[in-house]
Amino acid sequence: MPAMKVSQIGEFGLIYKLAQQSNAAINKNSPANRQLIKGIGDDAAVWHPSIPYQLATVDSLVENIHFTLDSITWEELGWKSIAVNLSDIAAMGGIPLYALISLGLPGNTEVKNITRLYEGMLQITRKFGVMLVGGDTVSSPFVFISVTVFGSSSNKEGNVLLRSEAKPGDKIAVTGELGVSAGGLKMILETLKFNRDSMTVLRRAHLMPNPRIKEGQLLVKKGVKCGMDISDGLAGDLTHICEMSKMGAKIYIEKVPVSPVLRDSFGEKGLELALTGGEDYELLFTAPDKTMKAVQKSLKCPVTVIGEITSANSGKVILMDNCGKRVNLKKTGWDHFSTK
Amino acid sequence: MPAMKVSQIGEFGLIYKLAQQSNAAINKNSPANRQLIKGIGDDAAVWHPSIPYQLATVDSLVENIHFTLDSITWEELGWKSIAVNLSDIAAMGGIPLYALISLGLPGNTEVKNITRLYEGMLQITRKFGVMLVGGDTVSSPFVFISVTVFGSSSNKEGNVLLRSEAKPGDKIAVTGELGVSAGGLKMILETLKFNRDSMTVLRRAHLMPNPRIKEGQLLVKKGVKCGMDISDGLAGDLTHICEMSKMGAKIYIEKVPVSPVLRDSFGEKGLELALTGGEDYELLFTAPDKTMKAVQKSLKCPVTVIGEITSANSGKVILMDNCGKRVNLKKTGWDHFSTK
Repeated sequence: MPAMKVSQIGEFGLIYKLAQQSNAAINKNSPANRQLIKGIGDDAAVWHPSIPYQLATVDSLVENIHFTLDSITWEELGWKSIAVNLSDIAAMGGIPLYALISLGLPGNTEVKNITRLYEGMLQITRKFGVMLVGGDTVSSPFVFISVTVFGSSSNKEGNVLLRSEAKPGDKIAVTGELGVSAGGLKMILETLKFNRDSMTVLRRAHLMPNPRIKEGQLLVKKGVKCGMDISDGLAGDLTHICEMSKMGAKIYIEKVPVSPVLRDSFGEKGLELALTGGEDYELLFTAPDKTMKAVQKSLKCPVTVIGEITSANSGKVILMDNCGKRVNLKKTGWDHFSTK
Repeated sequence: MPAMKVSQIGEFGLIYKLAQQSNAAINKNSPANRQLIKGIGDDAAVWHPSIPYQLATVDSLVENIHFTLDSITWEELGWKSIAVNLSDIAAMGGIPLYALISLGLPGNTEVKNITRLYEGMLQITRKFGVMLVGGDTVSSPFVFISVTVFGSSSNKEGNVLLRSEAKPGDKIAVTGELGVSAGGLKMILETLKFNRDSMTVLRRAHLMPNPRIKEGQLLVKKGVKCGMDISDGLAGDLTHICEMSKMGAKIYIEKVPVSPVLRDSFGEKGLELALTGGEDYELLFTAPDKTMKAVQKSLKCPVTVIGEITSANSGKVILMDNCGKRVNLKKTGWDHFSTK
């Protein structure tokens, strides 16, 4: 029997199937479910949030631009499309609650692959207490997945992490290790071979990143005011903080946490990947020394101080080696469209 | 001087330009602006709604599926991409507040066309007191526009219009006139010629529809509980109400309000367009006779009773002519993907 195509079951048949799949995955006791009034199936989703400060973010993944279907499984694609959005909520130190999915699909897409896509989405939404509450599916010459995630601040006062709050003398820190996702992408694109464990770590970092939800919330709790997630590369993203805060930044490149897997697999190139590689989805934040020490004590993941905020060099990131000499980088991070 | 392409100014250059354009259009005294804490420029938008019941909806428009760039202007495309989403908030009787835009663009798109797209978006968001508060732009082989609109219920009690609330004996009514948008689409696709005024009305109905925001809010205020917007065609959309409410429906086809422009331009075909044509973005709702009479008095636009809800024939819409005979229709409305 040939595989069923989405053109055969039609838009409403597909929506019905995905709604059933999503509803079966609902955790009835989750805060998201308790606050939900109307999920999938009406003109709009309706909820009554328990914390009044609302957050919303959107990100799209496009076939042959952000992924190719021969190098990512449908489950991984589902996971990643949600993960990149949850990371934006983590970047605010917020609580993610609901997601809307807008799905563009060619008519000859197999229905079972879309079920697999949703399986990946539901795996990560369940993990983080998020519910799929609606969306639309449209015919499209290529696959695209546009995900909107809603959440709230993690406290009744509406305190969140902003890009514009860096102050002179703040220490700059990152969670986890950097560059692994970029290493994974390089491995996939160039079909590089490493030892099996390294390949698993690299692939997973790129295709199934873990948003730092709890860590973002803890940062806010400990009094951090300035932060974002690293999606376009450390150097480029820190530049955004500098621009928005009208501050400068100094980074000591030898302090940047490069994963051992990355060093083993890419040698010297590892540091460059850590500085400029996108899609790590680690948190980048700044805080006074005292706050930073409290953060390092309370977070379970590595927190590495890599530099400091300066009032000089507003809008610029300066890289220093351990002899105190400035280092230049050709590329600062990802920029869609740019041919420069 | 050749026209500037988005690949030349890059993602961040484009975002900066669009953020400036959006911020210049802000109405500082609007409720949306007063409730906004962080708009464009951080990882997520943040707001503090004055009414605690939140609404959210998403819809995407895809090049060569929902529009072709040789038959719609960039301004019209911007207007329409927002309008179809505002209509989903109208369909709940809610207040629209914020929009996030996810934009897929080929690198060779001219920057001035994206400015025109945003001009169209900002024209309709200003009209309805909505603010653009964020989004993302991604490289894509085709243009797609995915819009998420957030709002709240129009009352502190969280009363909204649902599809599942039709009751036996309810009258079924629609706002405005139907089929004009489908007539406009047919005119554009088949390059039909009519008199100039008719062509303007038909084109505008299809490319620059007006969501029934105030009307939706008034319906809730007058006690209507069941409603939706007509995006896929009257017959098909009413079927959704019947399925969700587990009720049947009878429609007297001669009562369906067909616009004179549609009758003049398409003759007998006008009624078929009114019954099955999509994208009218009028409201379809049901209510007891007494409520319906109150609604007809208070709404300024035409409100036409076209049939009634029955406990028999659950999930089905039956069409009747004025002799009380059943009429069959081949097509019930739009269904993306379906090749049936």
